[in-house]
Amino acid sequence: MIGRFPPGRWNAITDVAGVAVGHVTLIEGERTRTGATAILPHPGNLFAEKVPAGISVLNGFGKFAGVTQVQELGQLETPILLTNTLAVGRAMQALVAHTLDQPGNARVTSINAVVGETNDSRLNDIRAPRPTLAEMRMALDAARPGPVAEGAVGAGTGCVAFGMKGGIGTASRIVDRQTLGVLVQANFGGSLRLNGRDWPGSTADKDGSIVIILATDAPLDARGLTRLATRAFGGLARTGAALSNGSGDYALAFSTARGIPSLPPEACSPLFEAAIEATEEAIVNALLAAGDMDGWDAGQDCPSHYPGLRL
Amino acid sequence: MIGRFPPGRWNAITDVAGVAVGHVTLIEGERTRTGATAILPHPGNLFAEKVPAGISVLNGFGKFAGVTQVQELGQLETPILLTNTLAVGRAMQALVAHTLDQPGNARVTSINAVVGETNDSRLNDIRAPRPTLAEMRMALDAARPGPVAEGAVGAGTGCVAFGMKGGIGTASRIVDRQTLGVLVQANFGGSLRLNGRDWPGSTADKDGSIVIILATDAPLDARGLTRLATRAFGGLARTGAALSNGSGDYALAFSTARGIPSLPPEACSPLFEAAIEATEEAIVNALLAAGDMDGWDAGQDCPSHYPGLRL
Amino acid sequence: MIGRFPPGRWNAITDVAGVAVGHVTLIEGERTRTGATAILPHPGNLFAEKVPAGISVLNGFGKFAGVTQVQELGQLETPILLTNTLAVGRAMQALVAHTLDQPGNARVTSINAVVGETNDSRLNDIRAPRPTLAEMRMALDAARPGPVAEGAVGAGTGCVAFGMKGGIGTASRIVDRQTLGVLVQANFGGSLRLNGRDWPGSTADKDGSIVIILATDAPLDARGLTRLATRAFGGLARTGAALSNGSGDYALAFSTARGIPSLPPEACSPLFEAAIEATEEAIVNALLAAGDMDGWDAGQDCPSHYPGLRL
Amino acid sequence: MIGRFPPGRWNAITDVAGVAVGHVTLIEGERTRTGATAILPHPGNLFAEKVPAGISVLNGFGKFAGVTQVQELGQLETPILLTNTLAVGRAMQALVAHTLDQPGNARVTSINAVVGETNDSRLNDIRAPRPTLAEMRMALDAARPGPVAEGAVGAGTGCVAFGMKGGIGTASRIVDRQTLGVLVQANFGGSLRLNGRDWPGSTADKDGSIVIILATDAPLDARGLTRLATRAFGGLARTGAALSNGSGDYALAFSTARGIPSLPPEACSPLFEAAIEATEEAIVNALLAAGDMDGWDAGQDCPSHYPGLRL
Repeated sequence: MIGRFPPGRWNAITDVAGVAVGHVTLIEGERTRTGATAILPHPGNLFAEKVPAGISVLNGFGKFAGVTQVQELGQLETPILLTNTLAVGRAMQALVAHTLDQPGNARVTSINAVVGETNDSRLNDIRAPRPTLAEMRMALDAARPGPVAEGAVGAGTGCVAFGMKGGIGTASRIVDRQTLGVLVQANFGGSLRLNGRDWPGSTADKDGSIVIILATDAPLDARGLTRLATRAFGGLARTGAALSNGSGDYALAFSTARGIPSLPPEACSPLFEAAIEATEEAIVNALLAAGDMDGWDAGQDCPSHYPGLRL
Repeated sequence: MIGRFPPGRWNAITDVAGVAVGHVTLIEGERTRTGATAILPHPGNLFAEKVPAGISVLNGFGKFAGVTQVQELGQLETPILLTNTLAVGRAMQALVAHTLDQPGNARVTSINAVVGETNDSRLNDIRAPRPTLAEMRMALDAARPGPVAEGAVGAGTGCVAFGMKGGIGTASRIVDRQTLGVLVQANFGGSLRLNGRDWPGSTADKDGSIVIILATDAPLDARGLTRLATRAFGGLARTGAALSNGSGDYALAFSTARGIPSLPPEACSPLFEAAIEATEEAIVNALLAAGDMDGWDAGQDCPSHYPGLRL
Repeated sequence: MIGRFPPGRWNAITDVAGVAVGHVTLIEGERTRTGATAILPHPGNLFAEKVPAGISVLNGFGKFAGVTQVQELGQLETPILLTNTLAVGRAMQALVAHTLDQPGNARVTSINAVVGETNDSRLNDIRAPRPTLAEMRMALDAARPGPVAEGAVGAGTGCVAFGMKGGIGTASRIVDRQTLGVLVQANFGGSLRLNGRDWPGSTADKDGSIVIILATDAPLDARGLTRLATRAFGGLARTGAALSNGSGDYALAFSTARGIPSLPPEACSPLFEAAIEATEEAIVNALLAAGDMDGWDAGQDCPSHYPGLRL
Repeated sequence: MIGRFPPGRWNAITDVAGVAVGHVTLIEGERTRTGATAILPHPGNLFAEKVPAGISVLNGFGKFAGVTQVQELGQLETPILLTNTLAVGRAMQALVAHTLDQPGNARVTSINAVVGETNDSRLNDIRAPRPTLAEMRMALDAARPGPVAEGAVGAGTGCVAFGMKGGIGTASRIVDRQTLGVLVQANFGGSLRLNGRDWPGSTADKDGSIVIILATDAPLDARGLTRLATRAFGGLARTGAALSNGSGDYALAFSTARGIPSLPPEACSPLFEAAIEATEEAIVNALLAAGDMDGWDAGQDCPSHYPGLRL
């Protein structure tokens, strides 16, 4: 356990009441190692009941969709889909279709689809059009509260981190009766620092990246959430991330508390610390759960293998 | 003719040598009034020969795709596609497929698709999945140098501006042997000011927006291009735009000059003025070319009609 | 009168209840044409009772002080001082001293002084250390509600706009029982457009700039105020501003409404329009009130003369 | 020694050829524990020979002066002064006077003074007007190449970090024949992580902050330098910084290489790593050099004591 705050029941982003996560994991033949992960802030019609949200970009070398509208309006109006770099367009279509299909949205004509991505081409034939639109929607439909599968699942299926097998990880923290949950799609380079020990790692970036999603039931407005999202990069850095040119590093935070005045800035510091702790731990959890994987390196056009972390 | 600088041969963005524009215009039955417009900075492999680019966002209430990477790296690596608000995902897919298919891109695994959009739901059944992926690619394939069709064509097919029929407009300016071209997708509210006269207009925004694309052969780096793009909003404001909450206002500028040192900041002011002039004129040209149109208001679920501007 | 909304009683920023403005005007000998203008959001202890605020920067070529903290926290904790480019440091000191001296601030150790500036070196020997620290404090002490002197006063004493004498201008608009006031320090280039007529002007920038301060009693949070501030550039552009390289263009908006939930984004469009209107009119008012002036051009080291606008 | 790259000769920012550092340290009586630190990129007329520069802001709760112009133009035209929070105005005046006094600047009328600050009120009577303008200029005049004094000197005199005595620290790295130097003004909270060990620290922020200055002789343009500056926060995070609400965290990077094309983005990753390493080490060096200090807590109005780090 990293840090000073206790985790929630599942040590997962789903410890924030109402939040659900769904994975579609695609492992087929020698070449398909990809997938999608959906995060739903609440079980209702999100377009009709938007949640406050903020995005922080440490390195914009990435294809995260929906950024400017979240930054302009401070609201999230679709679920979040994570997937691979070349599948962002299909993920947006899936979110548009999902939103148009919700009861009550018959006259909706404008939808800001939010999609994060990392590049899984070291293990996946990323040029093939997977996940399909239908598979994207399956991830949305699969979303559930409760424990969250980690490692080589969903959008983390083909991820690589620190030269080892990466993937999806999650963690949570309880801060003064408020819950903060983090889910990461970890696919970046660096030299892992764990328990005060350095793993001699690979810092080759090769279009890596990390997407960090933070959820909280603390009443934070979009400004506070943007600041909270920024702190997640502290957790990233503590793991030994190299923050290389090609590592697109994005954090999005949302709050499930609506209709309550936001915490003032001076009350946010404990949540900021918890964001650092939970992000660091979510990354470690991704590595610990990932296991070994064989796949296809699409950039080199040859088979590839990445080992899981063993402590 | 607006301003003090002379136009280029076509008074179009294609006056910048190498730039090509293609439209797909979809006018079918009572309900389909949409399309796509492609802008290609040069005829080569754009992923292999990226061009410097900058994006300025006046109002981020929109779904413009590819923003963070252009801002981070200052480069454009795909053509630009303009389309309707709910079709951005398909446009991204089209750009990914187009790029993967180019000779020399067999090992490309990361592509930053750049897509602008406005909401044509006042004349188009935007909830229907058009343009299709194939229609998006047709716009890319249709791109040609030379004169550019304006008004109710391509991504401007269903546009409305100042309560009248809007659409695609273009203009260019020659500044000291350098050429600046602008193309707009004009779909916003306000009270038109033209030749010193006010048209009593509609300021209702209803998810309007404008996308402004600027091309130049002047040697500007990404910083200079971002500053140039910002000046386009001066031309927008001069037309009487209301800059309302729902009007997502984006400008992207690119340069076709590569391998030449950038103009220093103090040499940019004439180009900045030309950007204001050409943007104002491109908007007026969109209105003048648009004509009347009947269609379907998707938000109201009823037939609609917008008249063209008559001087 | 510009636009569709009516002005307030004074057609001034002070139409927003509680707002006070003070000028110190320094016209001495052949060379001194400078000054300072103070804007106080309310008559109380501003550090203890901060107001929500937002800043928008169209062109950051300027020395505006206090930007990052206003952007980070969305709060204004000192009055605003406007002065000349090389006097910003003294203005900050004056705000620090003013704040430390307020009853109740005995233990304050951190103060974010907010200072705007334009370059009056075309009429003023800007290298001389005026206004002094004491003169800066006189502007703060001179602040009063009610009518506001315009033209060659305060921080506008040495301003030049459109190649004519510029200065301080103000205007206000009533929007659905809410008041919006604007005060500008107008010192930029371009070709004036007024009543549909073009004045052939100078676009030479020579370190021009404009600072635009917006006040409102509408309940807007920092996000809404930042968006409101951005719209002021629409009014700037409508006057014919050239938006040149050297023209640092800044807008700061604050609200005097505290403890009331902010207007949602979709209710802001009328205020946005009023910001465009009032800014355009405030600039025109600055020109109309300015009159002719002789002075000293510090960059050329020679006498100078700028005529006032005559309709 | 932290990381994989070797340090330069002095393990200091002055390992970048041409860079000079000067301190004024004010320790007087019971209450004065403050100072100023000047960093000069090269020994010439910096206004006439500007250097490319970039600023990254992790937490804008601070009074860093000169930000918007550096961000807009990508240039540094004055030395950098670091001092205490309430002395920024005097530091700006000192930089203006210093620049006006340089031979060749007789007609300069616009100067963008760059000043960083942290709050030393836990050991210093920050409300007293020290350093004076003259003392600020002494720091500029004291600037020398070669070894740099660290700990409780210059702008670090009254700093506190991790609940211990903080201050000025510096470090450098050699990356493929290019040199990167970092100097920090370390005054923030958190729980120190050093050699894999956690120091149970204070995370109380009480208006802390860190300013990080990076110098390099690598040919990076302003874009590359901004990205480099961002990586410094990785080093900050690795030390265990809490990134609290009140900790204003700023990084500015400049390059002494002029007239050489910038490194392309894909060549920057080793420098990015070195920035992380050198920043972490500079912070540790500040702590190691600081020693114990007695002073005056201006916020509590009582004597105070902070111990130095002992390994």
